[in-house]
Amino acid sequence: MKQPATAHHLLSRVEELIGPDLIRVEKQFDEELQHTEPFVKDLLSHIGQFRGKRLRPILVLLSAQAAGGIRPEHTILAAVTEMIHTATLVHDDILDEADIRRHVATINNRWNNETSVLLGDYLFTHAFHLAASLDTTLACRLIGASTNKVCVGELMQIHERGNHELTEEQYLRIVDGKTAELCALCGELGAQYAGADESVSQSLREYGRSLGIAFQIADDVLDVMGDEAKTGKSLGSDLVKQKLTLPLIRLLESSTPEKREQLTAWLEQGDMASRKSLRDELNAGNAIEEAHHRALEFAQQARVSLSGLADSPARRLLEDLTEFAVQRSF
Amino acid sequence: MKQPATAHHLLSRVEELIGPDLIRVEKQFDEELQHTEPFVKDLLSHIGQFRGKRLRPILVLLSAQAAGGIRPEHTILAAVTEMIHTATLVHDDILDEADIRRHVATINNRWNNETSVLLGDYLFTHAFHLAASLDTTLACRLIGASTNKVCVGELMQIHERGNHELTEEQYLRIVDGKTAELCALCGELGAQYAGADESVSQSLREYGRSLGIAFQIADDVLDVMGDEAKTGKSLGSDLVKQKLTLPLIRLLESSTPEKREQLTAWLEQGDMASRKSLRDELNAGNAIEEAHHRALEFAQQARVSLSGLADSPARRLLEDLTEFAVQRSF
Repeated sequence: MKQPATAHHLLSRVEELIGPDLIRVEKQFDEELQHTEPFVKDLLSHIGQFRGKRLRPILVLLSAQAAGGIRPEHTILAAVTEMIHTATLVHDDILDEADIRRHVATINNRWNNETSVLLGDYLFTHAFHLAASLDTTLACRLIGASTNKVCVGELMQIHERGNHELTEEQYLRIVDGKTAELCALCGELGAQYAGADESVSQSLREYGRSLGIAFQIADDVLDVMGDEAKTGKSLGSDLVKQKLTLPLIRLLESSTPEKREQLTAWLEQGDMASRKSLRDELNAGNAIEEAHHRALEFAQQARVSLSGLADSPARRLLEDLTEFAVQRSF
Repeated sequence: MKQPATAHHLLSRVEELIGPDLIRVEKQFDEELQHTEPFVKDLLSHIGQFRGKRLRPILVLLSAQAAGGIRPEHTILAAVTEMIHTATLVHDDILDEADIRRHVATINNRWNNETSVLLGDYLFTHAFHLAASLDTTLACRLIGASTNKVCVGELMQIHERGNHELTEEQYLRIVDGKTAELCALCGELGAQYAGADESVSQSLREYGRSLGIAFQIADDVLDVMGDEAKTGKSLGSDLVKQKLTLPLIRLLESSTPEKREQLTAWLEQGDMASRKSLRDELNAGNAIEEAHHRALEFAQQARVSLSGLADSPARRLLEDLTEFAVQRSF
């Protein structure tokens, strides 16, 4: 049996395959985040510290590579997707009332909510402006449509908060919007701007979508179970906000009516002790394992989406990224 | 001497000149704000009740008319600018903690701040998507650049809150971003998509900018002095938020050091009694009149910007709109 790819090993393969391209994206991203106004400059340089996994630029570039080759437009597109992702993070931190993000104070913690709203808007509009620097409206159309769907996913998530009867199907629809749509966009942008045909673009879009869902399920497991020091973000916020995610949905579904009543009472109380009890219940049953298994299924689905593509180092790396998405502990 | 145009009379001239075009814009706007998801549908239909003066669509259409003629693209562009304006209003209401907007509960009052953040994002991204439906990237580029400047203006405004030494120059720079930039965009989009040459586009951009500044100064006077029942929005919020606007800047500048100390103390206290005292001081001196005069100067500047354009009913209406901008009491 094949050994699972470690995060470290994967990153060095990414480095080897698209290292110089990623550096170009970083450079573009940093250049875009310059401003003469001192206050705006401060905010943007603080944003620079949120430097994360760069998953979305990696998806754009590897998709491009797997679909025909990286072109200059991909640098811009990759920077745009990272900027949009950053904008959604800044706004998410308001929604989640998070204090830390990637080991750094969130904007709303260090400054205030109003600044977060406007800085997110700044990043959104800047990303659109950058996308509009390309020759045609294709990127603007795809990006406009996808970001709009991301908003709907997030709105649905807020609307369903406190709904203790959220089904797996509803949960997946929310995840499909708030996370997977942007990953699907990355796959499609990579492919379309590499000159790929419709079927390859469609495959990479589907790959991104399944990968995104797998990634989000793993993230949700992490939120209820993970270690704050390791992940670098505020955890347990889903429980505090009564945001039902897959582990809890599975736990509730598999519980007796009496147990379910107890679980929802803990959810509603939301104090430290109740959260601890919920975590213990999650650990005691199969819910975590089942959620993890569901993430593995989406990872597998992502790999299957690539089956029509010609074999290449980029395709193989995209396949192996799916393991990273579900195994990560950070 | 020419009689000042009344709001009613102006509106009937607008109706006469571009009535059917405005109806098309309304229809486009309403169609764009449809959604199958019931929660999103509810939010968007609530937004529909914010129906305001439609200043931005009117600016796009009249500029187009004055610059060569209205084309089908202008319907989309006008709807886009109104959608962007609506997005900024939804986000502004979070910043201002406003409870009412155009006699209707704000989104953050009826739902919550988180919903406001995401609904604003929804409107922004939808507007960009719609702009990207045009043939070239021109509109996307102009809209991306302008909306980005709007964000900077708003960020500066937040940053300068509580700065009791804000100068008129700084104030005007903020207004230039947060309000005038979008009006300038409307003028330019109208002209460019009417096939106007560079100088006409530039003139209409400058017209929009000066009009926007005049309009914002009048709005700021209204915020400190106006009647909540008439205007349909939460008033006095600038004072509560220690947001210095022109009337107060002028009052502070013209006061003795002792009086200035008293005024800033009232500003910092921010209770009803202090607000009343500040209003009394504003009424007693020349500050309101001076601010109004400054608005008139910008209105005049807007009219001068049009001097290079051929005479037409649309140009004359744009000229008269400047009177409306500074005289409005709603």
